[in-house]
Amino acid sequence: MATHTPPTGTPAPGDSYVQSFARGLQVIRSFSESAPRQTLSEVAAASGLTRAGARRILLTLQTLGYVVSDGKLFTLTPRILDLGFAYLSSMPIWNRAEPVMEALVQQVQESCSAAVLDATDIVYVMRVPTKKIMHISLGVGSRLPAYCTSLGRLLLADLDDEEVRARLEASDRQALTKHTVTDVDALMAKVAQARRQQWCLVNQELEEGLISVAAPIVNRQGRMVAALNISGQANRTSAKVMQETMLPALMDAAKKVSQLL
Amino acid sequence: MATHTPPTGTPAPGDSYVQSFARGLQVIRSFSESAPRQTLSEVAAASGLTRAGARRILLTLQTLGYVVSDGKLFTLTPRILDLGFAYLSSMPIWNRAEPVMEALVQQVQESCSAAVLDATDIVYVMRVPTKKIMHISLGVGSRLPAYCTSLGRLLLADLDDEEVRARLEASDRQALTKHTVTDVDALMAKVAQARRQQWCLVNQELEEGLISVAAPIVNRQGRMVAALNISGQANRTSAKVMQETMLPALMDAAKKVSQLL
Repeated sequence: MATHTPPTGTPAPGDSYVQSFARGLQVIRSFSESAPRQTLSEVAAASGLTRAGARRILLTLQTLGYVVSDGKLFTLTPRILDLGFAYLSSMPIWNRAEPVMEALVQQVQESCSAAVLDATDIVYVMRVPTKKIMHISLGVGSRLPAYCTSLGRLLLADLDDEEVRARLEASDRQALTKHTVTDVDALMAKVAQARRQQWCLVNQELEEGLISVAAPIVNRQGRMVAALNISGQANRTSAKVMQETMLPALMDAAKKVSQLL
Repeated sequence: MATHTPPTGTPAPGDSYVQSFARGLQVIRSFSESAPRQTLSEVAAASGLTRAGARRILLTLQTLGYVVSDGKLFTLTPRILDLGFAYLSSMPIWNRAEPVMEALVQQVQESCSAAVLDATDIVYVMRVPTKKIMHISLGVGSRLPAYCTSLGRLLLADLDDEEVRARLEASDRQALTKHTVTDVDALMAKVAQARRQQWCLVNQELEEGLISVAAPIVNRQGRMVAALNISGQANRTSAKVMQETMLPALMDAAKKVSQLL
């Protein structure tokens, strides 16, 4: 998986062109579930911009059709989705992976998700829920920390140790449950184990009661480009059952998806 | 639904700030299923930019972590999804609407989608497929023309006639099947019918064999903010069955979703 090392040469981070573009994207990202409609002042505060700067960007976004305003409150328009769609449609694999994932969900009766790594996070690119599970409201594009998730630890395992350590150290490692491993050396060992096994099981480290197991999606060059997981409730599916019964089906599905690459 | 009239006053479309931001977004949109990896020259050609201009924007996107390069080929990173996620998470309704839509899919055994209007297109914001249907690979963020879809005609019906006519005239109206209505006056009559009924059925105008019916999602101010549809195969589900058996369940689901607003 490619890393996000900034390129050498122009533009430098201080370049006004970079800065104005970065600020524009920052304004887009300032809209959220808790702030779906914002005033000019709210956008400025959330993006760390002056009122004048925020106004210029909001009017630019409005001119381009990405934002609408009633005169006072600004909201994003669905045109924003075109940007994420550009990414998803540039990875046609997920459309073809969906039937494989649906068959797996039918077989194991647990939810299945696919994710990729971005810096210290995993980002969901596909999700097939099962009916009977508690509803986890994580759609495409949502993020979770890599250090405490099965998908994340497995995806980290494709990087070299130096890079893994750097990303773990850059992570905001919180004891989210009493089981969460937060020590960097202990996490390095978990990632090494995932690398040896080529799968990873995480038991209630992200959330009490949540258990998941991940398998790699590997391209023709042998690089892990994404990972697939099954997640369920720990009180219904033990780690033993997940590993012995569901993991073989998951490994099989991940292999099928890899062959689509 | 708010229209996308550019604001008066600054910035004008000729403003360099607007232009640079627009070009940056254009470069993001140049990546697609048929062009997931692009060279500098390909990006320049697809975005209508000079090589120097395209290079500057690609390096900016790379600095910001939205693009990676192996030195020759550029690809988008999953960080791009954050931009679409900003929109989706600023509309928390879709998370809460999903269980209602899933119950509807269970009941009618057909796929259910939610969409909003953007200029002359509908944009999908949620999609719950059923297992037995042919697989329609339209994910969140994908677009279809409004003039020939049940969701589109119903969403247009919330605008005043002058605006509806303007959008229909701006649409690239193609006879996609032998049933597709393309005449603006005939389409105005279809939209007026949808407005009276407060639902809309379209039979094989988008694609041979595809039939769908849509119902409105209305906010507390009485404005249609989105629409919900059921789509199926015409050879299995006739227009009569869809209207008599499925429409009542769809109207009921749309009402439930409206009450969540």
